[in-house]
Amino acid sequence: MRINIDRLLNDIETLALFGATPEGGVRRLALTAEDKAARDWIVARMRELGLEVSIDRIGNIFGLRAGAQTGPSVMTGSHIDTVGHGGKLDGPYGVLAGLEIVRVLNECGFTSRRPLCVAVFTNEEGVRFQPDMMGSLAFAGGISLEKALAAADRDGVTVGEALAGIGYAGAAAMGAAAPCAFLELHIEQGPVLEAQGATIGVVENLQGISWREITVTGQANHAGTTPMDLRRDAGLAAAEIILRARALASEIEGQMATVGAIRFAPGSINVVSGEATLSADLRNPDESRLKRAEEELDAFLEEIGARDGFEVAWKSLARFAPVTFDARLADLIESQARALGLSVIRMTSGAGHDAQMMARICPAAMIFTPSREGVSHNPREYTSPEALEAGANVLLGAMTALAGA
Amino acid sequence: MRINIDRLLNDIETLALFGATPEGGVRRLALTAEDKAARDWIVARMRELGLEVSIDRIGNIFGLRAGAQTGPSVMTGSHIDTVGHGGKLDGPYGVLAGLEIVRVLNECGFTSRRPLCVAVFTNEEGVRFQPDMMGSLAFAGGISLEKALAAADRDGVTVGEALAGIGYAGAAAMGAAAPCAFLELHIEQGPVLEAQGATIGVVENLQGISWREITVTGQANHAGTTPMDLRRDAGLAAAEIILRARALASEIEGQMATVGAIRFAPGSINVVSGEATLSADLRNPDESRLKRAEEELDAFLEEIGARDGFEVAWKSLARFAPVTFDARLADLIESQARALGLSVIRMTSGAGHDAQMMARICPAAMIFTPSREGVSHNPREYTSPEALEAGANVLLGAMTALAGA
Repeated sequence: MRINIDRLLNDIETLALFGATPEGGVRRLALTAEDKAARDWIVARMRELGLEVSIDRIGNIFGLRAGAQTGPSVMTGSHIDTVGHGGKLDGPYGVLAGLEIVRVLNECGFTSRRPLCVAVFTNEEGVRFQPDMMGSLAFAGGISLEKALAAADRDGVTVGEALAGIGYAGAAAMGAAAPCAFLELHIEQGPVLEAQGATIGVVENLQGISWREITVTGQANHAGTTPMDLRRDAGLAAAEIILRARALASEIEGQMATVGAIRFAPGSINVVSGEATLSADLRNPDESRLKRAEEELDAFLEEIGARDGFEVAWKSLARFAPVTFDARLADLIESQARALGLSVIRMTSGAGHDAQMMARICPAAMIFTPSREGVSHNPREYTSPEALEAGANVLLGAMTALAGA
Repeated sequence: MRINIDRLLNDIETLALFGATPEGGVRRLALTAEDKAARDWIVARMRELGLEVSIDRIGNIFGLRAGAQTGPSVMTGSHIDTVGHGGKLDGPYGVLAGLEIVRVLNECGFTSRRPLCVAVFTNEEGVRFQPDMMGSLAFAGGISLEKALAAADRDGVTVGEALAGIGYAGAAAMGAAAPCAFLELHIEQGPVLEAQGATIGVVENLQGISWREITVTGQANHAGTTPMDLRRDAGLAAAEIILRARALASEIEGQMATVGAIRFAPGSINVVSGEATLSADLRNPDESRLKRAEEELDAFLEEIGARDGFEVAWKSLARFAPVTFDARLADLIESQARALGLSVIRMTSGAGHDAQMMARICPAAMIFTPSREGVSHNPREYTSPEALEAGANVLLGAMTALAGA
């Protein structure tokens, strides 16, 4: 059995019409009118394919295909919400590949032993409502339903209100459809597969992540009249922090470190900065190493704070421990890919995904396909049809192997 | 003869009413209604003191006190425009001390040999219209009258229109009142006098200044999925530039270096910066050293631009060569201060002043008084009454010595 790539590409293009932007991308923030239209389209496709559709209280959509036996399903899925200037693939690829697999199985008259399920998780991107990966996190019990429903956007609209507004405040109990295994097919969103010339990435694990906002307070002063040795230049300290963070990535195995946001105050060409605010994004697939990176950064911040006339404060904006995916599922994915003659590598996911939340409650793993130039969260997001086809076929093989004949 | 500090302080407080802010500071941008009101008050005081008032075509105000002889005057003066959140002293101190000196001379019936002149220069701060020090620069022929009058603010209003609007588009030819010597009394705006415990700073020279805006272009990428060695992080390069600029200040004698403004794009916590824009403010009292600093910074920018995948561009926002003030005038100021029993140091001005423009056409020098904590361009700007009195008395002594009995 093989998926039909033309149908899958057609579905991807069709779904991309909901929230299409002039630049050729998609803007479909969670629980907006665009999200509702896309959800309605997905639900209609699920029903056409004979799936039993249920919506849970956080708005996750499940399309169940009965098996010869009852019991927990083999589930695949992803999300269909996007970032503000997103592409067509981040999320929808995994959902639509799941539907294409059901279509193929239906055409072949294949009844699996275990049920199969295609899931669409609410608000994976976390742009409009925080935290991100909200639907899968709530499904896995990582956040209470009450707390998730109470999260509000900038206009004060809560998730609960937005769900009711678009008609997706479902009745299914949280976690009712808990599967026996979860597989997520997703574009890599990074350059590793392309750089290594591989078509399939078997995602073994997912980095832990630590986000901080750091504020250095010094003393604003005239840039022309303040002698260098009397300055308390918060901007200079910020530059040191940026370089220290970068050094951590060299010193600690597997460590990523990024300072992507910065602000100097007052921010004038001729004024020494009295305050500098900067972000730190630390990631590592190993929890002890991630902690070490956090501690080393702490130590450096303390060192700066100990300097005469400097104060340093920081707050955590997010902290997720690394996730190790199920080794047997990873082996299964690899063997399916090799059986199809595809080039495969084992890899770590740098980004967060719904599968990391599902891994809390069942064996889970992910399949990655290459992102051209590593570009994602961008209208230029692109994966070749050949790779999209390959990824979906690997998912098909793994799903049927898990569900049994 | 001595100035009356109570009258001077009273004048400072009165002038500060024009544009007074709730924080106790002053907002009196050039050629606004507040500036007009303050100018009208000054002109009225000049007339009360018997000065012959003239306004030139760029709006500079001159109050002439006749001498026993005709010919070029001994001039003092400064400005009365402020920055957006300014104090009461930066500018007004020098103008109002000049008026107090005239008042004292009138009371004493003292007629100097040469005429004396008190000047108020237009738009020294350069907040609303660029360039700064516009009135003195135009007076000294450093910018054409046409170009200065054509400078526009953010709303498209030109200097010429604004001058006409407040009734200060004068008839006097530019440079008509060229003096034989120019002295400017000003607060230091830096911490040097306070740190050294001196009351009077004899300003021997004024730093050259080089302002740049630097843009580093790299590649925006996902902070979680882009391996460290595949990144082209413009923000990281910006941090290196900040530290390199700081190092220049250690390597080159007399060098100041400040990066006061910075911006990362896209500026998100989880995105490697694709672009970083930062300012560089380089100052040195020695032109060859300032040039060396510029060249060393250029070399470093080229080094970054030569890295794979980086582009670096920069543009000059301002460039003024250092100014050396007249040595005999400096000696005169120092001897006057010592005769008054004041503690004196020789120093360099870190900031730009009208006197640097006047130095193009006549012997010029400056007198500084201490700024508490070095604070300026701020409502907290403060100099003790004792120091204000001392500075004005030094100016009085120097003016009368130059003008002759």
